[in-house]
Amino acid sequence: MQSYETMSKEELQQEFEQVKAIYKEYQGKGLKLDMSRGKPSTEQLDLGLEMLDIINSKSDMKAENGIDTRNYGVLDGIPDAKKLMAEVMEVTPDEVMIFGNSSLNTMFDMVARSMIFGVCGDTPWCKLDKVKWLCPVPGYDRHFAVTEHFGIEMINIPMSEDGPDMDMVEKLVSSDPAIKGIWCVPKYSNPQGVVYSDETVRRMANLKPAASDFRIYWDNAYIVHHLYTAEEGKLLNIIEECKKAGNPDMVYEFASTSKISLAGSGIAAIASSEKNLADMKKTITIQTIGYDKVNMLRHARYFKNAQGVLDHMKKHADILRPRFELVLETLDRELKGRGVGTWINPKGGYFVTYQTLEGCATEVIRLAKEAGVVMTGAGAPFPYHKDPQDSVIRIAPSYPSLEELKDAAEIFAVCVRYASLEKMLQD
Amino acid sequence: MQSYETMSKEELQQEFEQVKAIYKEYQGKGLKLDMSRGKPSTEQLDLGLEMLDIINSKSDMKAENGIDTRNYGVLDGIPDAKKLMAEVMEVTPDEVMIFGNSSLNTMFDMVARSMIFGVCGDTPWCKLDKVKWLCPVPGYDRHFAVTEHFGIEMINIPMSEDGPDMDMVEKLVSSDPAIKGIWCVPKYSNPQGVVYSDETVRRMANLKPAASDFRIYWDNAYIVHHLYTAEEGKLLNIIEECKKAGNPDMVYEFASTSKISLAGSGIAAIASSEKNLADMKKTITIQTIGYDKVNMLRHARYFKNAQGVLDHMKKHADILRPRFELVLETLDRELKGRGVGTWINPKGGYFVTYQTLEGCATEVIRLAKEAGVVMTGAGAPFPYHKDPQDSVIRIAPSYPSLEELKDAAEIFAVCVRYASLEKMLQD
Repeated sequence: MQSYETMSKEELQQEFEQVKAIYKEYQGKGLKLDMSRGKPSTEQLDLGLEMLDIINSKSDMKAENGIDTRNYGVLDGIPDAKKLMAEVMEVTPDEVMIFGNSSLNTMFDMVARSMIFGVCGDTPWCKLDKVKWLCPVPGYDRHFAVTEHFGIEMINIPMSEDGPDMDMVEKLVSSDPAIKGIWCVPKYSNPQGVVYSDETVRRMANLKPAASDFRIYWDNAYIVHHLYTAEEGKLLNIIEECKKAGNPDMVYEFASTSKISLAGSGIAAIASSEKNLADMKKTITIQTIGYDKVNMLRHARYFKNAQGVLDHMKKHADILRPRFELVLETLDRELKGRGVGTWINPKGGYFVTYQTLEGCATEVIRLAKEAGVVMTGAGAPFPYHKDPQDSVIRIAPSYPSLEELKDAAEIFAVCVRYASLEKMLQD
Repeated sequence: MQSYETMSKEELQQEFEQVKAIYKEYQGKGLKLDMSRGKPSTEQLDLGLEMLDIINSKSDMKAENGIDTRNYGVLDGIPDAKKLMAEVMEVTPDEVMIFGNSSLNTMFDMVARSMIFGVCGDTPWCKLDKVKWLCPVPGYDRHFAVTEHFGIEMINIPMSEDGPDMDMVEKLVSSDPAIKGIWCVPKYSNPQGVVYSDETVRRMANLKPAASDFRIYWDNAYIVHHLYTAEEGKLLNIIEECKKAGNPDMVYEFASTSKISLAGSGIAAIASSEKNLADMKKTITIQTIGYDKVNMLRHARYFKNAQGVLDHMKKHADILRPRFELVLETLDRELKGRGVGTWINPKGGYFVTYQTLEGCATEVIRLAKEAGVVMTGAGAPFPYHKDPQDSVIRIAPSYPSLEELKDAAEIFAVCVRYASLEKMLQD
């Protein structure tokens, strides 16, 4: 395919007329498609349906340790669920605490606790003049929304295919005590699908923070969310690496079953050091008598163990894979070699990220919208919604049907060509 | 029965010898009984078992408005659950938001939000030199634990059979802008079982707070938890009364199904004004994508409406009533007229409160423990665990079996006599 970069102004103009015609044709179809939401499809939700039968009126409602899951109590989760999530997270049950239906909520609460009560005896962040946070970009919009909401100053850290720029992270973390945290989605990162390299994880674990209450927020949201094999999502164990590095308290690892069992009714977990867990529990024991143990039991009984989770995730992958491949094939066919942007082929997770020419993302998203395709808003994967180069677009292929996705991906590709040509003809 | 007050020193000494002998006999039995926990019994939990069958793999998982309860989304709860809880709380669905499994958690989060972000645009409490809170006593230990944890100064407000001392509440709230809240359990109060009188509710709704961000935390924990008839628990609607008084934003009402369906796996709700709900949601939309909607659907489908809840609560009452009556009969038989303390006969809720002679509560609880009966710790129903008169003992009859309760109540009565005689003989 001829790259636009090698075309003359005339050729570009001619190409633009053609692309406009194709675009207009799509626009005429009056489609209503949505590639904006990282939600499981109905087919995927159906995979977990039998889970709803596992706990019924005939069930033994006692956890492994004999406690009645229907009653009050047990702050850190029933042993059955701790064992399951520990196996999935490759830590010991003692290193895990189980929560309610939302890992985002556990992260929010962690920041809230740090603001009001401080971390392990350090000054509560609300008493400090300035709190800063490192944000690998592009990243997860809801992470950035949390730190923004708490008035924390966010610093962009560029991502590569190995993870965040560790030179920059090391320099900042070791020199500025106002930096209290970093958001990481280390496996199949949101939105690029990057798996942090071993070197990245080791350098992360070996950080020498200026602040004793600096913590890595390791959101392992896609821990078993492979499109192909677990091998391709292989990630060093940050809890282990932090221990080896003499930094056992520097990390909180988050996970949940939201995109494993049911998106709104899963269980969430945190893995961390004994010291960190004890520190958290000082406040959580005041906050609640305990999280939903019946739902914990439901999960533990249904999945049985980590292998049960992995087997189940293969069914998710069978539904997701064709959707991802359709999008990637369309990008390959329509855009590869045209010099209009780049993307990474993810091996798991929920997104494909397209990087347009500088200054084109907003226009692509606008064009797509006018042709009936809703994309995630421009700037969403950046702190303060500001994409400094206006070039990152998050594509979420999970929710639409394959038929819808075919049109949506093609329209997207046309919009990328359209916006790129507009820009090139202007320059 | 002869009152100890009318006995001579000799008669008291003789009585003491008798009581000591009875106590010793009980002690010799080596019993292990527990009247400390306000937990539903296994029999009660069994009442809700069929609820676990209501949602199964064959169920239509869509809420009334067509959204799939299994997926992400819907911040304030599915309409089915809002309708149910609104009916129970006697408000409109628009005035209600549904949460996870713990109303305590919703209260904690409300205080946390107020600390960090402020209430409806007012200064965040963490920026103030001093925040104070009114605590009707005796009250719920976990309420006081929340305000204590946030470093809020708690002020005791005496309770009568009509509710908190409203002269004192009015005076304090109208004169001190540092007072930001009051804890209330208005129906079958924890631990006395008092139902606030109409006058108390009206005076509460007509408060003229010095602080614009003063809020009544109206924890209607026992909203349908009648031992006899709903009539006896009749309570004016605080949301209505606050509107009438021109104070629509002054109250948050909390409720949950914890002691209706399953103690650890219910749903919680807040009712409040549109302005307050909007203010809360500004933060909650950052905190979570939404609470467990499958569990909301489970509750809405199982109970259907408020009448369904009331019918179900009659079954709870049938289990609880004999337990309460056994305790109250024992107190009547063993202690009435002896001049060794007072109690109120509750018509609902989870507790009986015994008020000993001044300075005897700790000793009664110690004696009971040594005879094998665990009671709630002395001072627990007071801020900072300090019962200024060392006289309030919370009795929780729900969890033990009737047989256990018979022994436990009798041992308790003997311990009250024992400690009272000790004190009288010392004086």
